[in-house]
Amino acid sequence: MKNNSRSKLSVFALGGLDEIGKNMYVVRYGDDIIVIDSGLMFPEEEMLGIDVVIPDITYLLENREKVRGILLTHGHEDHIGGLPYILRELNVPIYGTKLTLGLVEHKLREAHLLNQTKRIIVNNRSEVTLGSIRASFFKVNHSIPDSVGIALETPEGTVVHTGDFKFDMTPVNSNMADMHKMAEIGKKGVLCLLSDSTNAERPGFTGSERNVGEALAEIFRIGRQRVIVATFASNISRIQQVVDAARDHNRKLAVIGRSMVNAVNISMELGYLRVPPDLLIDPDEINRLPAHKVAVISTGSQGEPMSALTRMAHGAHRKIEILPGDTVVLAATPIPGNEKTVAKTVDQLYRVGANVIYSANSSNGVHVSGHGSQEDLKLMLNLMQPKYFLPIHGEHRMLRAHGQLAESIGVRPENVFICDNGDTVEFSSGKARYGSKITTGKVLIDGLGIGDVGNIVLRDRKLLSQDGILVVVVTLSKNNGKILSGPDIISRGFVYVRESEKLLEEANRIVTQTMEKCANEQVSEWASLKTSIREALSRFLYDRTRRRPMILPIIMEV
Amino acid sequence: MKNNSRSKLSVFALGGLDEIGKNMYVVRYGDDIIVIDSGLMFPEEEMLGIDVVIPDITYLLENREKVRGILLTHGHEDHIGGLPYILRELNVPIYGTKLTLGLVEHKLREAHLLNQTKRIIVNNRSEVTLGSIRASFFKVNHSIPDSVGIALETPEGTVVHTGDFKFDMTPVNSNMADMHKMAEIGKKGVLCLLSDSTNAERPGFTGSERNVGEALAEIFRIGRQRVIVATFASNISRIQQVVDAARDHNRKLAVIGRSMVNAVNISMELGYLRVPPDLLIDPDEINRLPAHKVAVISTGSQGEPMSALTRMAHGAHRKIEILPGDTVVLAATPIPGNEKTVAKTVDQLYRVGANVIYSANSSNGVHVSGHGSQEDLKLMLNLMQPKYFLPIHGEHRMLRAHGQLAESIGVRPENVFICDNGDTVEFSSGKARYGSKITTGKVLIDGLGIGDVGNIVLRDRKLLSQDGILVVVVTLSKNNGKILSGPDIISRGFVYVRESEKLLEEANRIVTQTMEKCANEQVSEWASLKTSIREALSRFLYDRTRRRPMILPIIMEV
Repeated sequence: MKNNSRSKLSVFALGGLDEIGKNMYVVRYGDDIIVIDSGLMFPEEEMLGIDVVIPDITYLLENREKVRGILLTHGHEDHIGGLPYILRELNVPIYGTKLTLGLVEHKLREAHLLNQTKRIIVNNRSEVTLGSIRASFFKVNHSIPDSVGIALETPEGTVVHTGDFKFDMTPVNSNMADMHKMAEIGKKGVLCLLSDSTNAERPGFTGSERNVGEALAEIFRIGRQRVIVATFASNISRIQQVVDAARDHNRKLAVIGRSMVNAVNISMELGYLRVPPDLLIDPDEINRLPAHKVAVISTGSQGEPMSALTRMAHGAHRKIEILPGDTVVLAATPIPGNEKTVAKTVDQLYRVGANVIYSANSSNGVHVSGHGSQEDLKLMLNLMQPKYFLPIHGEHRMLRAHGQLAESIGVRPENVFICDNGDTVEFSSGKARYGSKITTGKVLIDGLGIGDVGNIVLRDRKLLSQDGILVVVVTLSKNNGKILSGPDIISRGFVYVRESEKLLEEANRIVTQTMEKCANEQVSEWASLKTSIREALSRFLYDRTRRRPMILPIIMEV
Repeated sequence: MKNNSRSKLSVFALGGLDEIGKNMYVVRYGDDIIVIDSGLMFPEEEMLGIDVVIPDITYLLENREKVRGILLTHGHEDHIGGLPYILRELNVPIYGTKLTLGLVEHKLREAHLLNQTKRIIVNNRSEVTLGSIRASFFKVNHSIPDSVGIALETPEGTVVHTGDFKFDMTPVNSNMADMHKMAEIGKKGVLCLLSDSTNAERPGFTGSERNVGEALAEIFRIGRQRVIVATFASNISRIQQVVDAARDHNRKLAVIGRSMVNAVNISMELGYLRVPPDLLIDPDEINRLPAHKVAVISTGSQGEPMSALTRMAHGAHRKIEILPGDTVVLAATPIPGNEKTVAKTVDQLYRVGANVIYSANSSNGVHVSGHGSQEDLKLMLNLMQPKYFLPIHGEHRMLRAHGQLAESIGVRPENVFICDNGDTVEFSSGKARYGSKITTGKVLIDGLGIGDVGNIVLRDRKLLSQDGILVVVVTLSKNNGKILSGPDIISRGFVYVRESEKLLEEANRIVTQTMEKCANEQVSEWASLKTSIREALSRFLYDRTRRRPMILPIIMEV
């Protein structure tokens, strides 16, 4: 017996809209909930001290008995990185391709969640029944092998999620996107398409990963000393091309950086990275070989301060330092927000004498994006011919741009839904409309704490970071309220004490005066006394320095 | 009577090398010191709480009686913004063109330095004798009118400083760069050229500012409601083109944002901005006119959180809000580091329904750089034909790239000097070599404090911003060392207290135990006691939370 509310299809995001990261999309039909991806996001600049951000899964926890599983499109952090946190609270089966699950297993083992989690490997031919919904998968090209899109057949119609994709006509592993299957799905009829919007602002087609291989080959050929390539550890296809270039130009290859070593190991084990025997060397062997016989692949393409490449550039890496004449390739473009750290790393590499190849000075291209540009996106839209379109995986303007592309190939403007996380689109009898809003948001992770840092703590960190803190301590007598000790003022992050002794002396006087005044006015509540101290001191310091440090009055009574 | 050390020519930078900002170059011959520009820089991300950064002028203060004057190339902040701080300590005459000094005067008035500072207006035909050095000026094109390069004739030879420049064959004010004068200087012989490296990595010629005018005209023509253009207040030529577009398309123009109003006023007063009568309207009048009769020019092209455009986008501006159908033009590219704030502003503008035109979606270009690209730079090098070349105004890799351009037009590799701030190049008998290093560095300005925030304070702010602070207070008896009150633990920016009562209770126990242990071991020095508390608590908290808040033990004795 089905009631009306049950037979409704709804689609929404718990993460991934109006942002790049923490992708998590939900398709629900009646009592069956399917989750697609569980990503993390790296913190925004203003999230001081936060390590990672994951989606708020309150909705899933409130409906935990209905969640049939989490389907994964591919093995990047913004699609699988949230799993160790989320599976701890929601024990459901996960479905993914071999490489994707290989990368997930590594994470789950570290989080002691491997045994409790049911994991099902799928491929291009799999069909999975999840309650009333049938899921199938289609190969796409992206900067990591074994990426798939997902088609969900529901009683209300088919919902397609592209995953992250581009159309690469000459992919590195010769594993083309399965355009035939996409065409078949499109022909049968797609009710709603959810498609990757990352590059919706970019005209043209995204280049083939193989172009990068050609550029790398040339660099390996002409480099007279060592060649060091930094790229994303997750870009297995790029790593394959570095392996191939090293092989073709008779260089041994050392792998540097924890996440790079890990990615190489897993993808070799699972057969996604083909490395000739004897090609890889231990980093300790680098200095024993002639420079022109060595290549290195490393993390640090974003100039991250603690990464292997940055440490090499500053002579702070244990195993290898950059020598004059080495060629260093940054085979990645800076992620928005990282432009300055990348530029600093390039500068430092030049300083130590390296020949640096990076996006600004490389005419033949040592990086291509893994995401489709406007023509790729239109090709997907044309293959799928969806009735409704919901652009995903992008900031607001990218979703907009993608919506316009959909309109340009014939999707009706009123059938394009530009959503935020938590906005639901409901389908019923072939018609779509906005439904009610779902609770969602950001869960901040700081160290071991999940969600114990919120706006108040962040506001305090912000305040502390701007002008530091002044702690004012004073001990009063329980008997007569007289000052027994203090006021003492201790400052951190405010000003050099040596340079401001007089200022702090005066501050001390202000506190004493304020306390005397309060005593005369018979202010007995500590809260009011503390407020008076804070206000008087804050005013004084702002007048004198134009700064507003946090002021923390502490009153002890003995 | 001249001794040998006096007759030496030396050239160096106190700011502007390996950075974009705080430009300050020094040319010294014998006892005559000439300073070129006195800029400021905006703080790097890690300089928490800092407002601006200026060069360390210790060298100039130690040689104050030798400083003959400060010559200014143009009126941008990174060339004149340091003057209010520097002239306070070094009262010397300043030389600049009419608009440059107009902008400087506004700053000096605010800093109460106007009356004490001797200001001399120069132009393309001026010659100024400064001790043994004769300075002349040549017009260049840049994104602000009245920009000049400077030629310094010294007994050792001529040193040329280009200022910031590009070659604009169709400049907005029809005021071409004076290529004839440059040719003449070059023909007479240039010992050393100092030239702007900002765009040394960019191939080709930089486009003409007039191209932007054409793009703007089209936008003003087709916009059916209000057109709002955000750009740099300092880009007077860009402002002129917005004025022209408003005039040509029968729109009244409102000027919004404090620095924009200021720039418009000064440049109108001095005749550098030609505005038809009745074109400008008060912001209060915006809503009284039909939308298609209104244009707005505003600050906020970098998405700065407090800027006029950002406030408009969020409905937080007192005078004007963005309405659906308005066209908003971001006529500037993001400065490195500002990409994310710009993207957020674009997103927010879309959300409120504006039609947004910005670098990624504007094919015909609403921004061109004010700095010359590789072909401009080669043209300058060819005109000047310098014997020695010292690339300036750029980060290390830009200086390198510029050095290679110089070599490509025939400067000998050993005659190219890639310097850091403080590196001196000395010329004697027509030969150049590196001299001794000059003290230089960054002076940080926070509120009213100049240089009272340094590495220790910044390190504390960084620590505080990451994991907050725990203050541990305890009162001991003077007589017997027993605890009279406390330990009390107060945290800020560490964790929600509500969520962590148990943690803080345990922390309290740790402190008490540590103090008891110290008492048993007869630790009597407070410093050791504090260190023990800090270490024990830090270890405990890291174990439990993987965070490292600053810990501040305070011991009171009564």
